[in-house]
Amino acid sequence: MSFNTFGKIFRFTTWGESHGPAIGCVVDGCPPNINIKEQDIQIELNKRKPGQSKFTSQRKEDDKVQILSGLFEGKTTGTPISLIIYNKDARSRDYETIKNKFRPGHADFTYLKKYGIRDYRGGGRQSARETASRVAAGAIAKKVLESKIGKKFKVIGAVTQLGIIGCDVKKWNDQNIRKNPFFCPDKSFVKLWKKYLLSIRKSGSSCGAIIEIRARGVPVGLGAPIYSKLDMDIASAMMSINAVKGVNIGSGMSSAQLTGEQNSDEISQKGKKLKFHSNNAGGILGGISTGQEIVVSFAVKPTSSILKSRKTVDKFGKNTSISVKGRHDPCVGIRAVPIGEAMLNCVLLDHYLLNKAQCGK
Amino acid sequence: MSFNTFGKIFRFTTWGESHGPAIGCVVDGCPPNINIKEQDIQIELNKRKPGQSKFTSQRKEDDKVQILSGLFEGKTTGTPISLIIYNKDARSRDYETIKNKFRPGHADFTYLKKYGIRDYRGGGRQSARETASRVAAGAIAKKVLESKIGKKFKVIGAVTQLGIIGCDVKKWNDQNIRKNPFFCPDKSFVKLWKKYLLSIRKSGSSCGAIIEIRARGVPVGLGAPIYSKLDMDIASAMMSINAVKGVNIGSGMSSAQLTGEQNSDEISQKGKKLKFHSNNAGGILGGISTGQEIVVSFAVKPTSSILKSRKTVDKFGKNTSISVKGRHDPCVGIRAVPIGEAMLNCVLLDHYLLNKAQCGK
Amino acid sequence: MSFNTFGKIFRFTTWGESHGPAIGCVVDGCPPNINIKEQDIQIELNKRKPGQSKFTSQRKEDDKVQILSGLFEGKTTGTPISLIIYNKDARSRDYETIKNKFRPGHADFTYLKKYGIRDYRGGGRQSARETASRVAAGAIAKKVLESKIGKKFKVIGAVTQLGIIGCDVKKWNDQNIRKNPFFCPDKSFVKLWKKYLLSIRKSGSSCGAIIEIRARGVPVGLGAPIYSKLDMDIASAMMSINAVKGVNIGSGMSSAQLTGEQNSDEISQKGKKLKFHSNNAGGILGGISTGQEIVVSFAVKPTSSILKSRKTVDKFGKNTSISVKGRHDPCVGIRAVPIGEAMLNCVLLDHYLLNKAQCGK
Amino acid sequence: MSFNTFGKIFRFTTWGESHGPAIGCVVDGCPPNINIKEQDIQIELNKRKPGQSKFTSQRKEDDKVQILSGLFEGKTTGTPISLIIYNKDARSRDYETIKNKFRPGHADFTYLKKYGIRDYRGGGRQSARETASRVAAGAIAKKVLESKIGKKFKVIGAVTQLGIIGCDVKKWNDQNIRKNPFFCPDKSFVKLWKKYLLSIRKSGSSCGAIIEIRARGVPVGLGAPIYSKLDMDIASAMMSINAVKGVNIGSGMSSAQLTGEQNSDEISQKGKKLKFHSNNAGGILGGISTGQEIVVSFAVKPTSSILKSRKTVDKFGKNTSISVKGRHDPCVGIRAVPIGEAMLNCVLLDHYLLNKAQCGK
Repeated sequence: MSFNTFGKIFRFTTWGESHGPAIGCVVDGCPPNINIKEQDIQIELNKRKPGQSKFTSQRKEDDKVQILSGLFEGKTTGTPISLIIYNKDARSRDYETIKNKFRPGHADFTYLKKYGIRDYRGGGRQSARETASRVAAGAIAKKVLESKIGKKFKVIGAVTQLGIIGCDVKKWNDQNIRKNPFFCPDKSFVKLWKKYLLSIRKSGSSCGAIIEIRARGVPVGLGAPIYSKLDMDIASAMMSINAVKGVNIGSGMSSAQLTGEQNSDEISQKGKKLKFHSNNAGGILGGISTGQEIVVSFAVKPTSSILKSRKTVDKFGKNTSISVKGRHDPCVGIRAVPIGEAMLNCVLLDHYLLNKAQCGK
Repeated sequence: MSFNTFGKIFRFTTWGESHGPAIGCVVDGCPPNINIKEQDIQIELNKRKPGQSKFTSQRKEDDKVQILSGLFEGKTTGTPISLIIYNKDARSRDYETIKNKFRPGHADFTYLKKYGIRDYRGGGRQSARETASRVAAGAIAKKVLESKIGKKFKVIGAVTQLGIIGCDVKKWNDQNIRKNPFFCPDKSFVKLWKKYLLSIRKSGSSCGAIIEIRARGVPVGLGAPIYSKLDMDIASAMMSINAVKGVNIGSGMSSAQLTGEQNSDEISQKGKKLKFHSNNAGGILGGISTGQEIVVSFAVKPTSSILKSRKTVDKFGKNTSISVKGRHDPCVGIRAVPIGEAMLNCVLLDHYLLNKAQCGK
Repeated sequence: MSFNTFGKIFRFTTWGESHGPAIGCVVDGCPPNINIKEQDIQIELNKRKPGQSKFTSQRKEDDKVQILSGLFEGKTTGTPISLIIYNKDARSRDYETIKNKFRPGHADFTYLKKYGIRDYRGGGRQSARETASRVAAGAIAKKVLESKIGKKFKVIGAVTQLGIIGCDVKKWNDQNIRKNPFFCPDKSFVKLWKKYLLSIRKSGSSCGAIIEIRARGVPVGLGAPIYSKLDMDIASAMMSINAVKGVNIGSGMSSAQLTGEQNSDEISQKGKKLKFHSNNAGGILGGISTGQEIVVSFAVKPTSSILKSRKTVDKFGKNTSISVKGRHDPCVGIRAVPIGEAMLNCVLLDHYLLNKAQCGK
Repeated sequence: MSFNTFGKIFRFTTWGESHGPAIGCVVDGCPPNINIKEQDIQIELNKRKPGQSKFTSQRKEDDKVQILSGLFEGKTTGTPISLIIYNKDARSRDYETIKNKFRPGHADFTYLKKYGIRDYRGGGRQSARETASRVAAGAIAKKVLESKIGKKFKVIGAVTQLGIIGCDVKKWNDQNIRKNPFFCPDKSFVKLWKKYLLSIRKSGSSCGAIIEIRARGVPVGLGAPIYSKLDMDIASAMMSINAVKGVNIGSGMSSAQLTGEQNSDEISQKGKKLKFHSNNAGGILGGISTGQEIVVSFAVKPTSSILKSRKTVDKFGKNTSISVKGRHDPCVGIRAVPIGEAMLNCVLLDHYLLNKAQCGK
């Protein structure tokens, strides 16, 4: 039972508000003797940090991480790793005008009703700023998995649909993803997306996105039946990301439209290797990894903070309207790519350790 | 950390294999002094049990539940409630011919690789027979919630898409759902679905489905930010159901295609009541219930056990093919309706109790 | 968070009341491919079962265990193991006269105040009958540990003090323990204890006891610092046994009276072996096993159900007195020996698996 | 499952090493709208901090706590509270000479064997410096309980035995405790203890202690049967404190020597009040609080770091000896008083919230 902790054996607990002095996390259950440098974590944080292109929030944050515990002479010791990121560019004044209004699509209303108090500055704990902490935790999980499984292990994500424009997933190319500000895996779509997103922003609106995360080199046997299914924990991980409203494993929602013979992936043996002819299962059968690529996609709803005026209510019960001016991403989905990667790394490491525990391999 | 337990405070642990002597579950954390009869549980089990129409498995199971503990003079005592359902019609001979082959789309391969041993009879623990246990647990959760919140509280599910044919969700009518063998909420589609499913079955194939579950009368404030989000736990719950590959909350995957102003639900005050103009959020903002209807949908992949021949491999590494003859549902999605309802009842009760704990209401 | 579950990875959940139809437990997280027979469990249950000598309760229970799931062809499959024991000799009439009175030293008052309802028949869930379930779970843990570590692994317990008469712990002899009805490890005390306990029973009173459990062959490195310390989980395990009021690890409470040089166990190397000169630590330093014998002792208070009349109050708030006639053990501590052994086996297996998870060995 | 987290609903996770840059903790599950100031936490930390008398370590630490998250306008918001304490006086050079030797009575050997790596500086994570974090968490728990239950609620601890000299517990006086450097509740013993401890220190040795913690004003009904017993969680909490080897609830180990009629606390009704005639149960029956004073005591072994030379082994397997010079407490038990108080506050709040969850009161 944990409100702010994720994981079973490899666990991280995040803390911090958008406009508090700092945010951070404590990573527990990390195996010992793994080489980790602040720089390994910083690389992942840099993928997520704001202000990197005109398509993301202009909030200026270095997102400079410090390791406060759990390492000795550059290696993990098996004790908790505490990470801290100081908030630099928290302009609380930006939020003064909206402190009494419930922003539609945000959790202002639900937080206030639940707790009877809310830190309205930048959304407080609701803010996606929290996700920097998980990206940091994910960077540690990645290092452990690479150390245990080897370099064939790789988690990589991309935006496969930006608002109404999907790219061609069959043309997915890892190399392309980091070369454009959209994490688009198919370079032929970059120009179109650019144009589209500029027009969205110009109109004072925002758009949603679909993100796909793939994991390669995952051993057979991770996951567990029934209530620790690998797909269950992945769905849970992705749904914990701000603004995510849907999660698919493999064929996902589309599998409803398939027939039995279209959907179930046939198998054949080629020498010593067992091969699946397709991957509708997304690399998971009965909650356990098959050794195929794990494929998960999720939808991020459009940014709720938009310039366009929206009807709402204030905390005194009066009808009003709101137009949110802050420094918001026109599509929050873009920055969800490294977050999704981080979460998948964490889930996979957790199940890697659980499998060691119960099955000894 | 629990392989076979679901929940945080209201927790149930299921056990049992398809062709073992019995299945069952232990429900822990149930509030005391709630009136519960075996019949309350039986009613829910009867919705799920096989052999009720020609569109579901012909396995004959009464699914007769017995309460072994946790009640005194008809009331819960706060101690664990143990429920048992004996297996009656387990024809193990049906599976002899396939005990060495990996059925495509099933977990035969992953179980064997993970554990080095598998109970192949009827799929053993992989079998959807396990879901009877959760329907039983869900029946208890439902009784508790009705007792705490009152009769305005209601969870109801339906099939909204059968294979390639979606019904009109706007015509959802609770009364229709139980009047047809498909849990179809829009009676104008029943005939078409019947014809469609008969043709699917005749061809030796199967089809998928989309199920939608709605919860009404849910108080504002259930759920918690970050890693106990209500939508996260719901996604997790639904993904734990056999054959589920995708989960949506509210607009779900489609929210990616909306603009900010289309997606965020406007709010206005009418007298003492705060009203949302739409429900793209599916009743959850920032992981916390808004008081609106909670709307969750999920896709169930087509039954993997089909008559049509499929290429596969046996456990000795030889290429072979398989045609599964047992007594299988042409669309397992149909019987997922009461399972989804049960899981939603359990998640809601769990968060109801958690909210009492932290926020005292 | 679990009211009725014990353990982290190797977990068991117990259920059942003294006078309900049955009691039982579900064991989850058990490694696969371990040979287990009902007889392996029965042997342990037989050590605990009542009516074996005139020094324990005359309730007649076979305590015949049935395995309902989790095994296939005699081996564990990694899925939950459900165990059931039917209650045979539940004479509910015995308790009619006391259903409204709070028995001093029992949980009648606290259960009723907490839950607003209580199953007074034989103490309901309070009854030590629940401990049969844990003995069964412990039998499984023992089999797994023997299979993983080998026959050098052994957990054995004894009564080292019966009421006011302690035996000589230095004369502990494993062989003696099962040869007398008191689990006394030093045969020279058996006669004296017999005489003492008969006089206690004759006087309508009861006495307490101290039980010591030892584990040999435990690998170095089980346990974890801070909040999963091995000694913490052992203390927790022992304190969960009915009527236990104190727990010691190694020198325990007496360590307060030692000086630093008396207490800290010196170390020396003999060839390839590191040896401790003493074992005040009870085999645990910093929460982690040292490889020495693990030594834990705990006190069981005297049976509260006695013939002698005691002042009390009934549930209507009236002063009254009570003399409990049922079939009670004059010293419940005796039957706590196999329970303590079972709990220690469970804790050790749990930490064995956790160590595999984090440290891979 | 959590190596470095304590609690079920009110949970805290600690991190940090003795000679790292800082230590701290994250408190999760705290109810909202509770007034908390850094000063409230500082007061508790000041009771524990070193260098306050010549009877404790001369390490100079302000133990100045900073709150990094979870509060807004002086009140808790229901989100995680992150606390940090920077290490000031970490003289790593003190430990250079002993980095390769296993100090007897310390966890040097077990940490190295378990993890294959250890931060030897000041004991790293083994150091009792970690306990500052829990004292901080306990200060929050205390504020919440005072706010919920009122000022009649009070947790207070004392040293009742210093080495071989016990004080008279019947002369316990709250006022005396803070007036002497030993937390001695009976002022007539202060001089004697002073003389005794000076002689112990002078001889280059150390001594153990017994600490007793009492909680008053605890409502009836906290705790839960079987595996969340209040006494079980208290035993677990106390045993998690460094150097604790034994825990008693009420009469504890001595209850073994009592007869049934001596031990079970008689009850009578006086007007509207139910009264117990004695408190051998230590305020807990069947794992649930009775409303009486909760009384727990525990033994702290003598400081293992002593001047006297002790035989040991180095990490290369060579026999050697060690004499530990650092700045060590001659009796670590003294500073365990505020730690035990903190842990009891945390356990009680946790069960207070759990009771709200399941029983609604």
